[in-house]
Parts: sequence; C-alpha cells; structure tokens
Amino acid sequence: MIVKLLLDRKREGGELTPEEICALVDAYTRGDVPDYQMASFAMAVCCRGMTAAETHALTDAMQHSGACLTWPGLSADKHSTGGIGDKLSLVIQPLAASCGLSVPSLAGRGLGLTGGTVDKLESIPGYNAGLSLDDFKRVVASCGVSIAAQTADIAPADKKLYALRDVTGTVPSIPLIVGSILSKKLAEGAGTLVFDVKCGAGAFMKTRADACALARALVEGAKAAGRRAAALVTAMDEPLGWTVGNALEVEEAIEVLRGGNVQDARCPSCGQNARHPDDVVELSVELAARMVSLAKGEGLDEARAACRANLANGAAFARFAEMVKLHGGDLDAFLAQRRVEDVSSGRDASPRRPPGRAVAAADGFVASIDAQKVGQAAFELGAGRAQATDAIDPAAGVRLLVTHGDKVSAGQPLAQLHAPTRPERLPAAAQLVHEAIAVSSSAPAPKPLILEVVE
Amino acid sequence: MIVKLLLDRKREGGELTPEEICALVDAYTRGDVPDYQMASFAMAVCCRGMTAAETHALTDAMQHSGACLTWPGLSADKHSTGGIGDKLSLVIQPLAASCGLSVPSLAGRGLGLTGGTVDKLESIPGYNAGLSLDDFKRVVASCGVSIAAQTADIAPADKKLYALRDVTGTVPSIPLIVGSILSKKLAEGAGTLVFDVKCGAGAFMKTRADACALARALVEGAKAAGRRAAALVTAMDEPLGWTVGNALEVEEAIEVLRGGNVQDARCPSCGQNARHPDDVVELSVELAARMVSLAKGEGLDEARAACRANLANGAAFARFAEMVKLHGGDLDAFLAQRRVEDVSSGRDASPRRPPGRAVAAADGFVASIDAQKVGQAAFELGAGRAQATDAIDPAAGVRLLVTHGDKVSAGQPLAQLHAPTRPERLPAAAQLVHEAIAVSSSAPAPKPLILEVVE
Repeated sequence: MIVKLLLDRKREGGELTPEEICALVDAYTRGDVPDYQMASFAMAVCCRGMTAAETHALTDAMQHSGACLTWPGLSADKHSTGGIGDKLSLVIQPLAASCGLSVPSLAGRGLGLTGGTVDKLESIPGYNAGLSLDDFKRVVASCGVSIAAQTADIAPADKKLYALRDVTGTVPSIPLIVGSILSKKLAEGAGTLVFDVKCGAGAFMKTRADACALARALVEGAKAAGRRAAALVTAMDEPLGWTVGNALEVEEAIEVLRGGNVQDARCPSCGQNARHPDDVVELSVELAARMVSLAKGEGLDEARAACRANLANGAAFARFAEMVKLHGGDLDAFLAQRRVEDVSSGRDASPRRPPGRAVAAADGFVASIDAQKVGQAAFELGAGRAQATDAIDPAAGVRLLVTHGDKVSAGQPLAQLHAPTRPERLPAAAQLVHEAIAVSSSAPAPKPLILEVVE
Repeated sequence: MIVKLLLDRKREGGELTPEEICALVDAYTRGDVPDYQMASFAMAVCCRGMTAAETHALTDAMQHSGACLTWPGLSADKHSTGGIGDKLSLVIQPLAASCGLSVPSLAGRGLGLTGGTVDKLESIPGYNAGLSLDDFKRVVASCGVSIAAQTADIAPADKKLYALRDVTGTVPSIPLIVGSILSKKLAEGAGTLVFDVKCGAGAFMKTRADACALARALVEGAKAAGRRAAALVTAMDEPLGWTVGNALEVEEAIEVLRGGNVQDARCPSCGQNARHPDDVVELSVELAARMVSLAKGEGLDEARAACRANLANGAAFARFAEMVKLHGGDLDAFLAQRRVEDVSSGRDASPRRPPGRAVAAADGFVASIDAQKVGQAAFELGAGRAQATDAIDPAAGVRLLVTHGDKVSAGQPLAQLHAPTRPERLPAAAQLVHEAIAVSSSAPAPKPLILEVVE
C-alpha cells in the first residue's frame, strides 16, 4: 500500500477497495501511517465522500482493531447522536432489559455543553463506569443491563482517528461518523441496534436531510454487518424533558423509570402544577419498543405496551436500581443528596437570588425554547467540559419550569438555575435562558418529536 | 486564530481572510500548528480551491517567511513547471544575461523521473550550486547570471509545506502550486518573471485547461506582487530536445548555447545525419525574448533577434561558461569526460549490447514519442531519484536518435541508452523506449510547441 496513491485517488473522488481501506486503518492504528497522512485522508473523505462499500470497509476495519464481544440470547442497544437534555439511555437501556433483552451499553463521557451518559451516571455516589470488559459482561449477565464507559479495548482505531478528526476540522462527514459510531456498537456485540439521530439547532446534524442521510447510513451499515437495526430521526430544537445537567437529568430519568413525573408536585418557585415530561416518556417507549420488537421479532404495538407496563409497574426502575448497585452506586444517597441540593441551591435559594432564575417578560405562550442556548447556560453553570481533563459539577444545570405551548404571565419563573460551585455565573446563565425562551402572544402549533423512521 | 474553525470554513468551501492565512502560515512555520492540521488544510484547499485573494495571501505569507532579495537594474528569471528533457534554464538564463539582464535563478533538485536544473549543472565537475545568498549575489553581479540551489533562507514556509504536501496527496492544487512557485520566485527578487507551464502526458499539468489556469494564476499573482510577468503554455507530450538525463542534457544545452547542434555530426550508430534540436532553440529564444522584452519594455521581435544573435555569436555561451567557472565548475573536464563516456557507455558499447538500444520494428514515420515512458527509461538507468537521499548517476540517460515525423526503416536505431552504473537495467529501459516511440505508416501532422501565451 502506497498511502500517497490512496490519497491521490480519494482527492480526485475515486473509490478505494476494502483491502486498501483495511490496510490504511491497520497501519494508522499501528502507528505506521502518520497523523498528517490520516488527517489528509479524513479531509478528503469530508470533501469527496465515500461509497457504501467504502464506509462498510472503514467500519469493519475499525471494529476489528480491538475486542469484539458476543452475547447469548437476545441483545440490543440504543445509540443517540446526542442532544440537550438527552437522558434517554438512562431510561431506555434498563427498560429494554426489563423486557427480557441483554443490553450491553458502552457510552462516552461528554465533550460539549453537557456531560455524556457516563458523566450523568457518575453523579450517583459510588457509580463506577470504568469496568473491565469482564466485569461489564458480568453485570449484563446478572441484571440484563450495564452502562459502562468505553474501554480502550473497543475499537482503538476509532479512538485514535476520532481524536485526530476533532483537531483537524474533519468531524462532520457522514461516512466518518458512521464508521465511528458503528465500529464501537458492532464491537459491543448487541444483535439489535436502534439509533436516535437528533436533528435541529441543538444537535450535531442541523438539517433534516443530513440527519436522515446519517440515519439511513447507520441502519444500512448495521444491517450489512448482520445486525437488526432501525433509526428514528427526532427533533432537537428544544431541550428533551425538563432538565439539562447531570444529576438533574438522572433525577428526571428516575422519575420516568418509576412511571412518575419529575414535576408532579407543585413547582417549588411558582406553586403552579407542572406537567408530565411527555417527550422523554414518548421517545423512550418508542425507542425501547423498537429494540424489543426487532430483537424478538414481535409486533411494535405489543412491544410498546410491554414497555409502558414496565415503566408503570416498576420493573424498569428495578433494573436501573440493580445496575446502579452492581456498578457500586448508592441510589439512596443520590436521592437524599438531590433533596438537600434542591433546597440549598435551587428551590429555596432562587427567590433570594433573582439572577438565578429566568422569568417571563410578558404574558403569552412559550413559542420555542432554544436547546443550544439552554445547553450553553448549563455549560456556564458547570455542567459540561471544554477539555477532556476538565471537571464537571454534577449538580450544575437548568431545570425548565415551562415547556413548548405553555401559557405564561409576566414575571412568572421560567427556569431554575443550579450552580453550587459557580454562583457568579448565575446572571450570565439566566440571561442565556431568558434569551432561549421565546414568548409569543398566540399559542404555537405543537411540534412533532419523531420526524422520520428508518427501517 | 482557532485553526479548527479555519479548517471548518475551508472544508465547507468558505473563504479565509488574508490575516487568517498569514497567521496560519506563520504559526505552521514556527511549529505552532502541527503537520496534521496543515495536511488537513492542504487537502481542503485541493478539494475546495482558493480565491485569488486567498492565493495572494498564501503566496505573500510564504514569501515573507524568509529572506527577500532585491536587484539593481533590470532583472528577470524564468521558471518552468518541468518536463522530460527540459534543459531550457541552462540555455535561457545565460542567454537573457547576455542581453543585459541580471538573472538570479534559484532552482531545485529533482524528485521525479530525471534530475532538476541543479542536478544537471552538478554533472559538471566542481560545479557548486550550494552558494550562500551573498555568494549568489556576487556571481550575479559579476557575470549577470547564477543558477544556484534553493537555500533554506528563501521561503522556508514553502519548504516545510511542500515536504508535507508531497506525502499527503496534496500536490496538485493550483492555489498551492502558485503559492509554492511564486513565493520562491518573488523572494528571489527578479523584476520580471516568465513562466513555462508544461502541458501534456509528460508534465505535471496533464490537460490544457489546467495548464492555462495555472499559467493565468501565476501571471496574475506575479503582477499582483508588482512584477512584470508572462507565461507560455507549451506541449510536453514528447521529450524536449534529443536528450533525457543530466550530463546528456548539459551537453545538448551547451551545443545550443554555442549556436550549434547536438547531433550535427553523423549519428554514431546509424551514420545518418541528425537534425538540429529545433524545439529547444525555438522555445529558449521565445522565453528569453519575453524576459528581455518585458524587462526592457522593448518589442518582442527586437528581443528575439537579439537572443538569436547572442546564440550565434557566442555571447550566451560566454555567460554560461563564466557562470560555471564562478561556481567552481570545470567545463573542459566535463566535455572531455563526455567524449570518453560516449565512447565507453554509449556509442561504442551499444552495438555489442543490443538491449542498450531501441530499434524500429517496421518501416514508417515517428508518429509520437511518449515523454513519460522516455522519462521512466531514464529513471531506470539512474538519471533520477525516488527519494531525496538517493544518488543520481549524472551520465545515465537516453539520447533519442529520431524525432517526431522522422522517416525510419525497420531495424534502424531509435535511441541510445546510457547506464554506466546500472547496465543490468538496459533491457527494461530499452523496452520502455521501444514502447515510447510509435511508428506509423503515414507521416504525422507537425505538433505545435507553444499552445498559449498568457500576458
């Protein structure tokens, strides 16, 4: 293999053979191809694209650069491309396990406005996401589900290439994104893969066309590798659920898993009744049901009913609680701590700290909530990390008190801000949340959550 | 400057500001931007192009990364994009000097099928191309012309970027090529620049459209930097002149400079009369005349007449001989050595070593001579280097005995091959030359040498 010739061909829009792509990835992973050649390759792929055959070869080479797991019986996993307030893995993975599937789920830490699924779980005292693959297998065997941190054993080629793409302006390429996502998910070994491809201002894929293209490529690639697969393209213009921030999101997920409602008590600031976080429940059930339906080969309606039942009857929560325990986490301590923090930093504190709240400027209806701005507010408050070595404040974040279409009055609180370690950031974050929530004089049309289904 | 954001913009086809390009080039030259980011940038430029303003900014930043020379009086230089048998600098630079111009010419070593101008001159015993800039200035002041090797002082940013482009598949981009060529030529300081942009199978620019685009961009860039400039787009499907190989080409250039003819003696193998190397003379006069005409602001016909006169009267050769002497070269030793080598490795040896010659398979006319294949043959024989550290055999190469349109008879020698250090390669090289020379039953139409003039 002469790398220069491969680069020449890709630059001119030509196709590489599976053998050439495999040789390139292997040599790069070994260190025989330097970063500068791989960076050039990645940019050429961004500009010229890849055929489906090339994308499959890239995925396959990266998948087989490390360990590849297998699971007995029916197994499934869900992957989301990520969005503001997206705590769905915390609900869906235990929910699917409660329906009889093995759910091995290796997730990432976040480098963005808020933490990743692993960061969220680590806000539970004692939760150890850093399992060895053997311990990961044991937890899945024991309670049907484990959400653990990506290990160095899984798709090391992707780890190396992703770090390079991150600094060379070569992240937004569908073939490279597919290779990165699928190589890890295929190596993880679940027989069924369901993708939640987020679309909109608060997502990586800004346009519906791009999101659909990614969804199709993911499903096609997973099927080409012998898995059952489906994808939903879902709206990410507004935050998902009521909370944005690590512990806040775990709290909301627990309420959903308990079949309950984060805000079924009166809103602590305004005394109004808040509603059920419909979008989190709706989308969790829809995605989990597809995992169950595809894995078991049963009807989607039947699977939906089973999922709703297991949220209502506590079976899903029991799986979550068992998983947390097997990972060393202390759920009681978490919940106790949340009650204290709510009192000290949020519910009780906000009236005395007006900059820590965002209030409506006029009477009207909540016309839109800009997910990106709410995410930036959470980031300001300490919920995310700019660099891999930054610390996250698990308690930091935003709790929305209103949602799309709500009637509001001038002066009504719209959100609570939590910033136990960075109170000085509250005014700036409150300003962002204030800008994020647009109030209009007439009621807006409801927005669809699920935009496309790709099977 | 956040490099990632610049890469994002260029990847999406956006434009960078002159300040951004300057900051990027400066940071790369200092080592503050790593190779992998610059490789990604170069590939993005290959795929997305650059505006004229971006190209000028790139050129300017690379030019000013090192020393920038200036010359008193009228000065000019010629740059060729390079082709098989292109020994024109050896003729043109002294010829223009003999017409009263200062000709400071910094040239490269070759990384390709045959050596560069510096490699060719170094086949003259003692010729020292590695002058300091001060010595370079002294030689130009003394005899009006110096052809020396590119120094590390001139456009170091280009040196670094070119080495990276060479290994990252990012060479063929007109903005990057213009930046590389012009940054060095502008730093060299000549007031007039004439470009010979080669076009065809044996050239870097394969199509006329690409060659014309490069020619226009070079002329436009040089003018934007305040120089007088013109370019000729010239054919490079067939080798230029009779010889391909370092010492062989110096020998041919000397014959032209003497107003003579490489093969005015009978062909040593076949006894036939060979003709004057018209193309080398024609193109040398045309390019040198444009340098003189532009620099002096006089008519082109007048300049052509002066150039022809100075070839005929020995003035051009005198400049060449003086330059060689000032560079420490021994022209008499070179010519004596050539006579010995001709006898030992070529003229005398070939009859006893049939694989060292290529002969016509049938009666007919020379319809075409594939420059690329002749170049490959010369490379096989030791005339080029695959890596910068490889040694060149100055005596190796191909001497064509026929040219386009010649009538040939079956069995007639078509070329002599010289391989003093690699006789084992003679059969393979002879096969290449045999394949290169197409013989047809009818006389082919003459081919134009100058395809376009860009002023």
